[in-house]
Amino acid sequence: MGIVVQKYGGTSVGSLEKIRNVARKVAQRYKNGDRIAVVLSAMAGETDRLITLANELSANPDSREMDVLISTGEQVSVSLLAMALRDLGVPARSLLAHQISIRTDNTHTKARIIDVGVETIKKVFDAGEVAVVAGFQGITLENDITTLGRGGSDTSAVALAAVLGADVCEIYTDVDGVYTCDPNICDKARRLDKISYDEMLEMASLGAKVLQTRSVEFAKKYNVPILVKSTFSDNGGTLTIKEDEDMEKEVVSGITYDRNEAKITLLGVQDRPGVAATIFTGLAEKNINVDMIIQNVSPDGKFADLSFTVTKTDFNKAMEIVREKAPQLGAREVTGDTSIAKISIVGVGMRSHAGVASRMFEALSCVGINIMMISTSEIKVSCVIDEKFVELGVRQLHETFELDKPGSNFGKD
Amino acid sequence: MGIVVQKYGGTSVGSLEKIRNVARKVAQRYKNGDRIAVVLSAMAGETDRLITLANELSANPDSREMDVLISTGEQVSVSLLAMALRDLGVPARSLLAHQISIRTDNTHTKARIIDVGVETIKKVFDAGEVAVVAGFQGITLENDITTLGRGGSDTSAVALAAVLGADVCEIYTDVDGVYTCDPNICDKARRLDKISYDEMLEMASLGAKVLQTRSVEFAKKYNVPILVKSTFSDNGGTLTIKEDEDMEKEVVSGITYDRNEAKITLLGVQDRPGVAATIFTGLAEKNINVDMIIQNVSPDGKFADLSFTVTKTDFNKAMEIVREKAPQLGAREVTGDTSIAKISIVGVGMRSHAGVASRMFEALSCVGINIMMISTSEIKVSCVIDEKFVELGVRQLHETFELDKPGSNFGKD
Repeated sequence: MGIVVQKYGGTSVGSLEKIRNVARKVAQRYKNGDRIAVVLSAMAGETDRLITLANELSANPDSREMDVLISTGEQVSVSLLAMALRDLGVPARSLLAHQISIRTDNTHTKARIIDVGVETIKKVFDAGEVAVVAGFQGITLENDITTLGRGGSDTSAVALAAVLGADVCEIYTDVDGVYTCDPNICDKARRLDKISYDEMLEMASLGAKVLQTRSVEFAKKYNVPILVKSTFSDNGGTLTIKEDEDMEKEVVSGITYDRNEAKITLLGVQDRPGVAATIFTGLAEKNINVDMIIQNVSPDGKFADLSFTVTKTDFNKAMEIVREKAPQLGAREVTGDTSIAKISIVGVGMRSHAGVASRMFEALSCVGINIMMISTSEIKVSCVIDEKFVELGVRQLHETFELDKPGSNFGKD
Repeated sequence: MGIVVQKYGGTSVGSLEKIRNVARKVAQRYKNGDRIAVVLSAMAGETDRLITLANELSANPDSREMDVLISTGEQVSVSLLAMALRDLGVPARSLLAHQISIRTDNTHTKARIIDVGVETIKKVFDAGEVAVVAGFQGITLENDITTLGRGGSDTSAVALAAVLGADVCEIYTDVDGVYTCDPNICDKARRLDKISYDEMLEMASLGAKVLQTRSVEFAKKYNVPILVKSTFSDNGGTLTIKEDEDMEKEVVSGITYDRNEAKITLLGVQDRPGVAATIFTGLAEKNINVDMIIQNVSPDGKFADLSFTVTKTDFNKAMEIVREKAPQLGAREVTGDTSIAKISIVGVGMRSHAGVASRMFEALSCVGINIMMISTSEIKVSCVIDEKFVELGVRQLHETFELDKPGSNFGKD
């Protein structure tokens, strides 16, 4: 007997038949004697349908109202699952963000959780019921509805698991775990049984779409084990846990890529203090995240070329802001490039192995791929390349670091 | 400058174009300087779509979860209208039942409002904003979502108007007012400019589908003037107000009918105390409303035939309960009839005019309509007749009481 948080994504509850299937899985677990909180996304396609409705109505829909609108998707799925569970004789109760008190900040459409109440769910558990919780949504201190951004239900689930002290947070999705790279691109991709929070964090933020980055941050902070599994099969699964001595420390655990990148370059800006601040404060004010930044100073030290990347989604808004600021920085020209992608290698073993980055650059140049920007952390190396070379690059790196063979890795021996 | 509550029904917000139309009407009023709370129903067809979804999932959907599900319809429409208003430069804010604190009892799917908070809306008014309120929904003391039954948004609007001390509660719908009878049945139907709460109450409860009965009770109790108007035209309208000396007291103001009636008869029940209680307590426990009741005692005074009507919707459930109780009452037989309807005349003038009922019976018998049951109140007479005679009966009564001529009425002179 334990406390389990399960999260089912949109494809897992995409039809009434699939909702019944989820109900059967939850019922089975319930009958084992576990206390279960189930977190749901909206039925597949529903959030997009609602966003389209808003965009057809308004050129610039108010973000507070957008959250009121799109949070209905999860309200529908939780009520339906609670009905389906009751049909199976499992007492269940749907709960919305305001009923649980999932408090967030005021950043509509990408809010961050600041606190989660436990009283309501504990009462539901004490009554012997399954708590069916609407993911993705939160509520501000002023009782306004917020949403947590794409994939936000992952974060709802992990946050709930953290406050409930759950034994595990199970994320059910349409893939059976985390792979060494995208199996759609590379047929040698191998499922990982275990991965550390830090690696998963890098994988998530670098574009492996299995978990929302924020959910992994939460899991790491509160030490919540996350098990990623398929809704449609009992096999497989990848466990994300704290890195420990026993853990096999792969030099490179996975290759990721992200096509949702765009590059903006300011040519010939004056090289004086405050230039970067002017640009990046302007972007931050509009909630635009900047990923990589590179600055080259001219030989005479007076002018610099400044390049940075944002998501393709934010590209137009970012270009507008940069064009507006460019004159006061003396920039000669502003250019943009949306045909780029980011390709990365991730692995905790990099901490203790030199030469991993250069091996990556070599491998890419071997097949004629030019590297435009580079960024590194303790456990990852990312390169911006031409978008058309993504598949080639991923396969080349997968082979170079021998990721198809468990336990064997370049430079490890 | 005043406080106005406007309510728009499902057909008024049935498409994005219609929502933009409502936004224009609200904007115009806002620019006059009024403080406006707009109450909305779900977009036409949405509530039914959600109910169908639940019924496809489950043979007997849990009523608490049904309310969580169907209350999303209003959440969608209020968010969209708030967006549309902002596009017109009108600051607006959607508000749900839990944000306002529209408290109800726990009777899911037909809850009754017990209290409405004013703080939130007053804050919205003080900020110079339009409050766009989700109708139909409420919240229990335990923070469970409830809904108020078909037409519940009318009651939301009137309750809000009452607590806000609004000058008027305007109900916008697809007809331009309250008529002497259904214009679809009788082409001589005439729109009423004014009607008293008591008459409107009888009209509403007798089947004229313009307003939810409960909303008129609220309006009468708190003396809120209700103006029923068309969303799609600036003309017409019927004002429901307190009966006063100046008011023209029509003997008969309107003819109504209700096809949603079914009759259940217990033959030969023992005529002893407690028989009626056994039956009607059983029905009340299942939230089944009984309308008319008739009991005929046999010549020897030992046995009675008991007939009563319920809605067609409740008929099957009611038959089940009655069949179960019948043996202990010694009933010989239980019969049911779903091909009946109720036809009624309503008018405050009846209080001071004799002979109105008999004139009604005469008029119906004149065209060969048999009367199965009769019930009267101070200001109405209702007859249960064969459903197939509804149109004929309505037209006959309309002519008998000369309702096509304003101010002129049978027996008035």
